[in-house]
Amino acid sequence: MLTKKELKEYCKEARENYLPHISIDCVVFGFHEGQLKVLLVSVKNEGEWYLPGGFMFKEEPIETAADRILKERTGLDEIFLQQFHVFGAPERSKEHFEMYKDMLPAKENWFTNRFLTIGYYALVDFFNVNPMPDALATACTWCDLDDLPELKLDHALILKTALDTLRLQLNYQPIGYNLMPKEFTMPELQKLYETILDKKLDRRNFQRRMLGFGILNRSEQPRKGGAHKAPYLYSFDLQNYKAALTEGFKGGW
Amino acid sequence: MLTKKELKEYCKEARENYLPHISIDCVVFGFHEGQLKVLLVSVKNEGEWYLPGGFMFKEEPIETAADRILKERTGLDEIFLQQFHVFGAPERSKEHFEMYKDMLPAKENWFTNRFLTIGYYALVDFFNVNPMPDALATACTWCDLDDLPELKLDHALILKTALDTLRLQLNYQPIGYNLMPKEFTMPELQKLYETILDKKLDRRNFQRRMLGFGILNRSEQPRKGGAHKAPYLYSFDLQNYKAALTEGFKGGW
Repeated sequence: MLTKKELKEYCKEARENYLPHISIDCVVFGFHEGQLKVLLVSVKNEGEWYLPGGFMFKEEPIETAADRILKERTGLDEIFLQQFHVFGAPERSKEHFEMYKDMLPAKENWFTNRFLTIGYYALVDFFNVNPMPDALATACTWCDLDDLPELKLDHALILKTALDTLRLQLNYQPIGYNLMPKEFTMPELQKLYETILDKKLDRRNFQRRMLGFGILNRSEQPRKGGAHKAPYLYSFDLQNYKAALTEGFKGGW
Repeated sequence: MLTKKELKEYCKEARENYLPHISIDCVVFGFHEGQLKVLLVSVKNEGEWYLPGGFMFKEEPIETAADRILKERTGLDEIFLQQFHVFGAPERSKEHFEMYKDMLPAKENWFTNRFLTIGYYALVDFFNVNPMPDALATACTWCDLDDLPELKLDHALILKTALDTLRLQLNYQPIGYNLMPKEFTMPELQKLYETILDKKLDRRNFQRRMLGFGILNRSEQPRKGGAHKAPYLYSFDLQNYKAALTEGFKGGW
């Protein structure tokens, strides 16, 4: 929670610079070797957890704002964020309104606004990504999806909706570039899908379906070493991968 | 274009009742027997075409606002609208701003606001749906997708994005309930997909894939009459259909 002085300064700056009634929240999922995490920030003096979020400048494009907010709150740059849903239940920002309402007159108080928030999500390799908290936050960290702290406002709903969207996306768009090494085995790719879906998949069906999407190239050389039969190595066919990102899989209609 | 008096009244009411900076636009696709159309409105005195849209009351949930706006502008009720994207390029509402800027001082003028618009889409049987224009509109009509009038603002982009979303949706969610008769043949269902995708599909692949989704029941009795071999009749398995709407197809992961 902000002090009265901090709140007053924050609200003055916010009213001058930001578009009222609209915020952005980012759900950044991190994958590495069979683990799925999400990036959370903890706000100064509150000790409570939020998705990294913020406000849009009055003349700023939404996508630019999402990138900037994520960078400011977490230090992360060049993350491919995708818009997935707007959350706008009238009571969703009442918690902040109640927290600050006695500290400033309503007209000066940024938090008396009703806020709709635009949700963005991304999936990155958390091993390569070291988040850094900004001045407002005391912590910014990767949390396990099955051991989450309680989230403030409607951020648990936003997180769940992002996860549902990511899971649905596996059915019509490719995933995995930037998460897998340049060459990988089919079981390694299957592990990514199993981790996101939180369930086991049939090995043969997975291979048949994945090859049907036409986004993989098989290497001439199987992986060397190991006692068992050497597994085939695959890499993404970037041209087909990118086409499928915008048009859906070829195996589609 | 509104007269100065109309504009003044409209702006006063808008500032009192609506959330600034946010609008809603609806893309309602209509299908019937191999034809795909979209619902457009023409605003009084402008003779130019828009998607049906409007503003949100200060304490109104977004979904309620979308339903209400569609009903007010077109008379249509109980249409299942799905949110699909927010459009927020800073220059997207400049056209309205320019049109009205000399008629009222900026502080009173609702159209000096930057507006983000939340896009909703739906697919209905246009044969059963008779749109009616509201007081602001002179016309409200079904237009062929391949013979559209020029659309104002960024509404052509909103329409294209909705169509892309609908086409992508065919890969992971069922479609067709409320569009098909209670019982239908596989070629009739294929026609729906071909019309939305604007391309021919292979008959056998279509049947195999569609049956694999597990959302169809086959009737015991083929259709009677006709010179050729009577085709099988299908109906939607509503339980599986609804499950697939929220979770994606079973044929998925």
